[in-house]
Amino acid sequence: MPYTYETDGAAIYLQSFATIRAEADLDRFTAEEEPIAVRMIHAAGMVGLEEFIHFSPGFATAARAALEAGAPILCDAYMVSEGVTRPRLPTGNEVICTLRDPRVPQMAREMGNTRSAAALELWRPHLDGALVAIGNAPTALFHLLNMLEDPDCPRPAAIIGCPVGFVGAMESKDALWAAQPVPNCIVKGRLGGSAITVAAINAIASRKE
Amino acid sequence: MPYTYETDGAAIYLQSFATIRAEADLDRFTAEEEPIAVRMIHAAGMVGLEEFIHFSPGFATAARAALEAGAPILCDAYMVSEGVTRPRLPTGNEVICTLRDPRVPQMAREMGNTRSAAALELWRPHLDGALVAIGNAPTALFHLLNMLEDPDCPRPAAIIGCPVGFVGAMESKDALWAAQPVPNCIVKGRLGGSAITVAAINAIASRKE
Repeated sequence: MPYTYETDGAAIYLQSFATIRAEADLDRFTAEEEPIAVRMIHAAGMVGLEEFIHFSPGFATAARAALEAGAPILCDAYMVSEGVTRPRLPTGNEVICTLRDPRVPQMAREMGNTRSAAALELWRPHLDGALVAIGNAPTALFHLLNMLEDPDCPRPAAIIGCPVGFVGAMESKDALWAAQPVPNCIVKGRLGGSAITVAAINAIASRKE
Repeated sequence: MPYTYETDGAAIYLQSFATIRAEADLDRFTAEEEPIAVRMIHAAGMVGLEEFIHFSPGFATAARAALEAGAPILCDAYMVSEGVTRPRLPTGNEVICTLRDPRVPQMAREMGNTRSAAALELWRPHLDGALVAIGNAPTALFHLLNMLEDPDCPRPAAIIGCPVGFVGAMESKDALWAAQPVPNCIVKGRLGGSAITVAAINAIASRKE
């Protein structure tokens, strides 16, 4: 006997978001932030994530305005760039990941850093006004903060800072939150990752649920 | 003043895995299962995930043997296929995701199902002896179970069943666990997702940490 289940993708999304809104504590988010937080919780499959999600004032507005103005999205990992739902992007925005650029391994050796961090050096021509999405590597977020210590480095419009893990993830996100170089969103602590980061991008890109 | 942080990727991995082994309760896993569970916890950034990870007897051995024999890896989403670390694969195994095949939208309409589920129909020529990795869509896992109800459908060697979310995720994984069509691994409940699924693949592919 075949298994029966909900097969309507739109119905699945609506029912999922209704469950999240019934169970999660979303009161402290603004109307602009709330759908972003909901989609991040959805990607994690985890009510309770909201406790760790923090938006700096103006982040949601700045990030949306950047995409509506045609800004590119700069991603630290292909799991992030591949997850962005292209039809949701308001201006067919370019989604860029430089991790597999053939110059990156040599750059990483010369910098004495990870390939994830070295790849950000190739963001410089695209960085001005961009939406930055770091969903994997703490070293990438730390290196971005060091790049932005230079006042001549172009400024992104907003940063989604959600690297995940046990070494440097919490510290890099705390450093971003303390420095506030541009409007940003973080998931405090160890949690984070590509799926949560993609969810934030997709929610910023379109209000459609 | 620049931020200082651990920039050695190998050291980051070793320190992360040591933290997980110190904090997580891994006693019930076999020696073959333990490194898979550790990497899944690492991807989630979440000690405590181990409570929800279940391996059927023989899963780890069957999945490793399949990859060593050259089996392809069939993924339900590009966030899964893009995350597989190619140098870890023992025989340069093919990593297949059929979601963007141009036939899929029409097939989904005809089947009255999601594109994620419809895309699995294109797995049939690759399914015999494959490692299946479902890290996103509950509808894909349910459709796979329905395909395997047909005794003439080719059998994969093993299934990683880790769809995430609030509608059908728990139910599809419980159905897989109850049916046991082939050796499998699940994350019970709502948790799961592409990062955890990729981590399982990468751990199965190579014992190198």
